[in-house]
Amino acid sequence: MAGSKPTKTVKSWLRKLEKAITAGDIKAAAKLFGKESYWRDLVSLTWNIKTVEGRDGVADMLKRTIAATKPHDFRIDGEASEANGVTEAWFTFETATGRGRGLVRLIDGKAWTMLTTLQELKGFEEPRGVRRPKGVEHGAIAGRETWAEKRAREDAELGYKSQPYCVIIGGGQGGIALGARLKRLNVPTIIIEKNDRPGDSWRKRYKSLCLHDPVWYDHLPYLPFPDTWPVFSPKDKIADWLESYTKLMELDYWTKSEALSASYDETAKEWTVKVKRGRKTVTLKPKQLVLATGMSGVPNMPKLPGQDIFKGEQQHSSQHPGPDKYKGKKVVIIGSNNSAHDIAGALWEVGADVTMVQRSSTHIVKSETLMDVALGALYSESAIANGIDHNKADLIFASLPYKVLPAIMQPQAEETKKRDKKFYDRLKKAGFQLDFGPDETGLFMKYLRRGSGYYIDVGASELVADGKIKLAHGQAVRLTENAVVLEDGTELPADLVVYATGYSSMNGWAEKLISKAVADKVGKCWGLGSDTAKDPGPWEGELRNMWKPTQQEALWFHGGNLHQSRHYSQFLSLQLKARMEGLKTPVYGLQKVYHTA
Amino acid sequence: MAGSKPTKTVKSWLRKLEKAITAGDIKAAAKLFGKESYWRDLVSLTWNIKTVEGRDGVADMLKRTIAATKPHDFRIDGEASEANGVTEAWFTFETATGRGRGLVRLIDGKAWTMLTTLQELKGFEEPRGVRRPKGVEHGAIAGRETWAEKRAREDAELGYKSQPYCVIIGGGQGGIALGARLKRLNVPTIIIEKNDRPGDSWRKRYKSLCLHDPVWYDHLPYLPFPDTWPVFSPKDKIADWLESYTKLMELDYWTKSEALSASYDETAKEWTVKVKRGRKTVTLKPKQLVLATGMSGVPNMPKLPGQDIFKGEQQHSSQHPGPDKYKGKKVVIIGSNNSAHDIAGALWEVGADVTMVQRSSTHIVKSETLMDVALGALYSESAIANGIDHNKADLIFASLPYKVLPAIMQPQAEETKKRDKKFYDRLKKAGFQLDFGPDETGLFMKYLRRGSGYYIDVGASELVADGKIKLAHGQAVRLTENAVVLEDGTELPADLVVYATGYSSMNGWAEKLISKAVADKVGKCWGLGSDTAKDPGPWEGELRNMWKPTQQEALWFHGGNLHQSRHYSQFLSLQLKARMEGLKTPVYGLQKVYHTA
Repeated sequence: MAGSKPTKTVKSWLRKLEKAITAGDIKAAAKLFGKESYWRDLVSLTWNIKTVEGRDGVADMLKRTIAATKPHDFRIDGEASEANGVTEAWFTFETATGRGRGLVRLIDGKAWTMLTTLQELKGFEEPRGVRRPKGVEHGAIAGRETWAEKRAREDAELGYKSQPYCVIIGGGQGGIALGARLKRLNVPTIIIEKNDRPGDSWRKRYKSLCLHDPVWYDHLPYLPFPDTWPVFSPKDKIADWLESYTKLMELDYWTKSEALSASYDETAKEWTVKVKRGRKTVTLKPKQLVLATGMSGVPNMPKLPGQDIFKGEQQHSSQHPGPDKYKGKKVVIIGSNNSAHDIAGALWEVGADVTMVQRSSTHIVKSETLMDVALGALYSESAIANGIDHNKADLIFASLPYKVLPAIMQPQAEETKKRDKKFYDRLKKAGFQLDFGPDETGLFMKYLRRGSGYYIDVGASELVADGKIKLAHGQAVRLTENAVVLEDGTELPADLVVYATGYSSMNGWAEKLISKAVADKVGKCWGLGSDTAKDPGPWEGELRNMWKPTQQEALWFHGGNLHQSRHYSQFLSLQLKARMEGLKTPVYGLQKVYHTA
Repeated sequence: MAGSKPTKTVKSWLRKLEKAITAGDIKAAAKLFGKESYWRDLVSLTWNIKTVEGRDGVADMLKRTIAATKPHDFRIDGEASEANGVTEAWFTFETATGRGRGLVRLIDGKAWTMLTTLQELKGFEEPRGVRRPKGVEHGAIAGRETWAEKRAREDAELGYKSQPYCVIIGGGQGGIALGARLKRLNVPTIIIEKNDRPGDSWRKRYKSLCLHDPVWYDHLPYLPFPDTWPVFSPKDKIADWLESYTKLMELDYWTKSEALSASYDETAKEWTVKVKRGRKTVTLKPKQLVLATGMSGVPNMPKLPGQDIFKGEQQHSSQHPGPDKYKGKKVVIIGSNNSAHDIAGALWEVGADVTMVQRSSTHIVKSETLMDVALGALYSESAIANGIDHNKADLIFASLPYKVLPAIMQPQAEETKKRDKKFYDRLKKAGFQLDFGPDETGLFMKYLRRGSGYYIDVGASELVADGKIKLAHGQAVRLTENAVVLEDGTELPADLVVYATGYSSMNGWAEKLISKAVADKVGKCWGLGSDTAKDPGPWEGELRNMWKPTQQEALWFHGGNLHQSRHYSQFLSLQLKARMEGLKTPVYGLQKVYHTA
């Protein structure tokens, strides 16, 4: 209630913060934060995606940002709540250039976590609701151009007669979500997609694939799925959705197009992007280049002696065409993560003889358990019943600093172990090497740190536990004419070898498209610097290079799951729009590069 | 507030109603209604769309329905409000077979208007929210059929190996909206559409066409337009939406298909529908047949002497291909309603020489004015800001009995006259014969009574007022080789004659498809029996034959604007589903037939 104690506490805290900031009193502002504290900013103060830690971190950020961004008019939005000694409240605020929304958590009157996000740029608001376009110009206009004629003209001209401000390489969910946001912001953009139709990157995968994340987590911006949409979208259904979405959002989406090369002119501040569109080569001159080719990066294809003499088929998991033609065949799958399991399960279903080679331990979590234990509070029907739709959930999720996530995830992992004890026991008994991450934090930390090392079980683990999918262990060291040989000498006869051996960092795409120099300059993508396997330190506090400025001017990385594609595309689109409009966008805390891959 | 006086009043009234109904005390129930009172029921008690009037009407309806439908558990939903002596409240209730929602208005403690609507059938709820399908069957299933395979199989089998329960003739917005609802209710349905693609009925119309109703009024079921959708959809954009919607909703939609004939076997309770699909003829055997071929019915094409010797082109407005090829041509348009104006305006824009022949007076209302004055309270951004989304608005709108609508519409018409006085004065000065309907009630009553006699001005009226579109008056009596001749002898030279002469009643479609006997048996469609032009009495209280049982068992009419297609498809779909499931559906007050056309 308006006069409740928590609400008064937050109002008073926001007033003090505003007073300190307005007065330029950095010390007073920092003192409003606890010793352990985090301020996470999405583009509103920092023109970056940045978490600062502790009073010193807050002080440093404020000192270097408030003169330019002038945050003000902090107002509580709704009522504060209190639980377990934490007072929590939504708030709105403004900056010199935009309007923002945030979420603060106080402990003993001091901020523990603070999220600030830029929601829109003043003067460049999205044309929604009362600002929506009229659609028709009433009145009689000689020689009028209709909507269809205008779309056809724009389609014919963009990239030829006129240049896009932005080019997005990759037309999967990431490119599409960002494209939709840029369209609304009137940022001329071309999306380059090698496939024939939007959604083909899903359609072309193995036929039994469904999303492993539930529907509430998967909405695209602006057009949520209808309320009968299945919990786990079959791949062709999500593909159809992406295709319709691309059309309805009027994206400038070039199918059958491949980016051949890109180079940046540091003087002209302009990219030259060569694109093969159908049979012709087109040269685009955008100011901004976004790589949205998938967070997975370039496929890792191991080099083994004997690959040249092996008489069967060999594929990277990303090339696997689905199980249909392998009925009765012997298949060896190198790897034991998501792709390995998905492919193994589908192959077993058609009657292939499948062996999975586990090279290192893997985290397994049942899809239902993940949905209930990890996502349920934010992304579920019950969350919706509690007033938390996916837009609100995204902000709540974003408000939890990466540093504190392990402590939040660990009890969930414990709960998971307990709930599915029998399942895990059976898996281990079958010889499967199981882990919950280096600090027993489960799936989500593995995803954030390395984007690999796990399988969300939708059925294949039962087959492993039952011995229907056979297990082998260790590294593959060579191939014979008809088998894979492991380090312990085991020979696994094979008609097909699938290398489910993962992907390199996304900056591999930069190397392929631009140059090794630029790939090294921007460095490794993804991961937090947690100093765990495949995520070397030092601690960086945010995902490397994702959705934020990189060391290469005008080069951006966009990707992740549907949730991230939806949520972070908002902040990337605002960064691009601000640059297009010539707003000042001084970046605070541009990341350093510690690793090149 | 929960204890407020209006809320208490309504709670007490609902308690009394329930008590009287439960006790079978019809007299006591009727006494809860005012002398002037209306109970409008959408399918919940009457298995019909029915308004009864006064205490006698209420008593008759209750006497003949409550034994079978057992309405009970009336509960106020939210708080009652009070304004101008009218107390208003939402409520929920149940019947033997379903769950309902209603809106009641009390004056002096007695009901003035009462709306009851069936929302869902018990045991046959839509699979939405917590009931949504899972999408994937987790686990490993040998020989699993994927979503895409299942869809392909159903598509190949329905109509061949298996028979649809329902066939809908016409795949415009009406057929599509109803098809989406039936899909959700798991009623096997085929939609027959003669065009190549969903949306073509819009695409093929003249190129500058935009919806004359604003976006808030036009949503389809389940998947609202995104909040940047233009206020007035250009025709190709709405066509694209319909096409995507049809695909995403997984409708069984046969394009390039034409229904050739239909006949009903009264013994087998089954239709035989012959359909030409592509080049082949398919015989369908549905239990239910819905004509959704457009509320406009069959085009009226006047027969005039000289049509055979006229050397130019002649078209009914529905055949007009758009203006492009008539630049510099002389065009005479017979008629002065919506189509006439739209076509005239578009022709003028490309530089044709256009004369409109006004045969009788026409109601004109500016689109903006209509939006502000008539629709704004229910369908607008400000309505949404007031908590009235289109679903709520539909029920509020439905709660206003047709009998009281003129009294509500008349002040709106007055307001319109005042607001646009200068515009109307200019039109009249140009010789345009203007009316506001026989009782000065404006557009909406004309739409409901006769579905014609008006133009929603999006620009062409200015051209008429300016003399850019020329006016002529009176009936066309004959054609010469190169002109239209009016009754006063005026000769209007023409290269093209467009007959914007409207459409017959929808039962014309039944005559074409089934037989004259069945068309006469069901009688005229649309109109209320208002005893005004083109809507002869006696008073019937609901639109004739629309969305409700007709005198021909298993034959239904569906149509209207996007709002009606959305809203009434819900009640038609529930009637069909109940029949498919073998529920008892005793119809109260089946309409009599007073007019055959």
